[in-house]
Amino acid sequence: MRIIGPNVIGIFDAYSGVDTIFSPRYRQKRPDQGAIGFISQSGAFGAAVMDWAATQGIGVSKFISIGNRIDVDEVDMLKYLENDRETKAIAVYLEGAKRGRALFHMLRHVAKKKPVVLLKSGESSEAQHAISSHTGSLAGEAALYKGMLKQAGTIAALCSEDLFDLSNALAHQPLPRGDTIQVVTNGGGFGVLATDSIVKYGMKMAKPDRKTIEKIKSKIPAYASVANPMDLVGDADSERYKIALDAVMQDKNVSGVIVILLMQLSALETDIVNVLVSLKKRHEKPLLVCTTGGEFTAMHVRMLEKEGIPTYSSPKKAAHAMKALVEYSRTRKRLSI
Amino acid sequence: MRIIGPNVIGIFDAYSGVDTIFSPRYRQKRPDQGAIGFISQSGAFGAAVMDWAATQGIGVSKFISIGNRIDVDEVDMLKYLENDRETKAIAVYLEGAKRGRALFHMLRHVAKKKPVVLLKSGESSEAQHAISSHTGSLAGEAALYKGMLKQAGTIAALCSEDLFDLSNALAHQPLPRGDTIQVVTNGGGFGVLATDSIVKYGMKMAKPDRKTIEKIKSKIPAYASVANPMDLVGDADSERYKIALDAVMQDKNVSGVIVILLMQLSALETDIVNVLVSLKKRHEKPLLVCTTGGEFTAMHVRMLEKEGIPTYSSPKKAAHAMKALVEYSRTRKRLSI
Repeated sequence: MRIIGPNVIGIFDAYSGVDTIFSPRYRQKRPDQGAIGFISQSGAFGAAVMDWAATQGIGVSKFISIGNRIDVDEVDMLKYLENDRETKAIAVYLEGAKRGRALFHMLRHVAKKKPVVLLKSGESSEAQHAISSHTGSLAGEAALYKGMLKQAGTIAALCSEDLFDLSNALAHQPLPRGDTIQVVTNGGGFGVLATDSIVKYGMKMAKPDRKTIEKIKSKIPAYASVANPMDLVGDADSERYKIALDAVMQDKNVSGVIVILLMQLSALETDIVNVLVSLKKRHEKPLLVCTTGGEFTAMHVRMLEKEGIPTYSSPKKAAHAMKALVEYSRTRKRLSI
Repeated sequence: MRIIGPNVIGIFDAYSGVDTIFSPRYRQKRPDQGAIGFISQSGAFGAAVMDWAATQGIGVSKFISIGNRIDVDEVDMLKYLENDRETKAIAVYLEGAKRGRALFHMLRHVAKKKPVVLLKSGESSEAQHAISSHTGSLAGEAALYKGMLKQAGTIAALCSEDLFDLSNALAHQPLPRGDTIQVVTNGGGFGVLATDSIVKYGMKMAKPDRKTIEKIKSKIPAYASVANPMDLVGDADSERYKIALDAVMQDKNVSGVIVILLMQLSALETDIVNVLVSLKKRHEKPLLVCTTGGEFTAMHVRMLEKEGIPTYSSPKKAAHAMKALVEYSRTRKRLSI
């Protein structure tokens, strides 16, 4: 049994400025002040995810690499982050619990107040063996964990990228009242793919009210497809998005909106950021962005993320994050009874 | 039925320089000369994916947005790319086939020579409805397509990001002889996650020969974990990777290698690129890299991609790409009988 790397406890507090991370800043950027509290049982895992988040423009409140847990463990840290004002959602990477029963109770307790997204590795016996070499933890039965986490109202991340994808939506967006999702896009293909993903994740395509459809149709070109997915087509500018989004955000048949922005198309200018920020302020309804591309897209990703509008590089990821919002909305109702 | 965007046929030939894409280059970067031939039934989808690929350093041979297919369709383009010297793997985004039977025969024919990765949208009836608005295609039964593609030896992409993730591995890496995979890492957590993903994708964790293990152990610090996953731990430099990788690449028990590079850790310098390029030249065995992070990582991603070493932002994606290599290796054997 070797416990080398994880011996070291790393702490990063974006608000107080405490930073005990060894990696130099040219290798690992530090995230801005943000709303995600992050607990990791692997230091290098934490470093890589934080570096990614910082570059995307996603902020963090506190990061704690819990090392080999001589003094404090994930249960203590969950309790701490539960009461941390800056933390709106908690992300956890865990190889094995030190105190299983206490963890379950704490997760269930915290879930009443804040969403917790947890990535538990060690699903296979091969990985469980690897865990015993890495952190010396007992990985435990994967099925047992799965049931425990579900009962506690914890949102399961299934891979490394899920962890912040889901936490980011939960930290920044309001919870939906239902599971009827509207897609608004300037590219037909991505609209179709988003539809497939929404259905796959067990949500429903919203059926906008007839009045909503008519209102939009009266204001935008007839060649756009005002339905769901709503294809504003390739020459859509920010104004067309604004008309469409303002209407669907007000529609009671719509619980949440996935906006697809393909910045490669010339009509879409940077003022789309203002449009989305203003919508976020006016409507208490989740709005997630799907956008993919190169540098020009990356610039807009950072702008949006800094305004608390989560972005996703694929329709599937956006749908998965929306599903986490739907799931946590239900969990809150269940646990508060 | 509206067929607006996809009316326009877009062509990009990285070798001849032909470029009929409307999007300006500051919005959509053009990929370098490369080995992936890309056929898309959605222009905007193609634009977004190409922009992403260009920024990653992934090259393309030809890109054809087939529009509304008045003259040529996906079957013709597959035939064309089959005989295109620069194209080593073909990526296809399809909403609905124009000539189903001809497509099946062409896919099966091409698969004997070159791998084809295909993303077929329209799994749900909701998405099928959206497709009829977008390209006016008949989406067809999802289950029917699934069976057809499998029989034809086509590799299925399940989301937008899969398409180039899988094509990239198939275009640049040799096919594995079996399905036993070795993981080499400088971060324990990512090693565990890669193990979970390898098992999930139906492959096996390789059991390196005792001699391989001993050879590596004799040359690197005792606190490293020489197993599978092989955790070279946080202070691993390029030399330690070289020793480990050179040994496992020669091991007959190992069919393919996933190398995890966490560039946040200070000991790992840029000369790791040379190590991997040199290994690629000396061994006829697939090697895929998993690396995630910010700008410093992105710089290394571009270097590796330009050398034909595919990189993945998560262990799951790397394992999925390795699975595509394993699958196509089997397909080649099956179809050549």
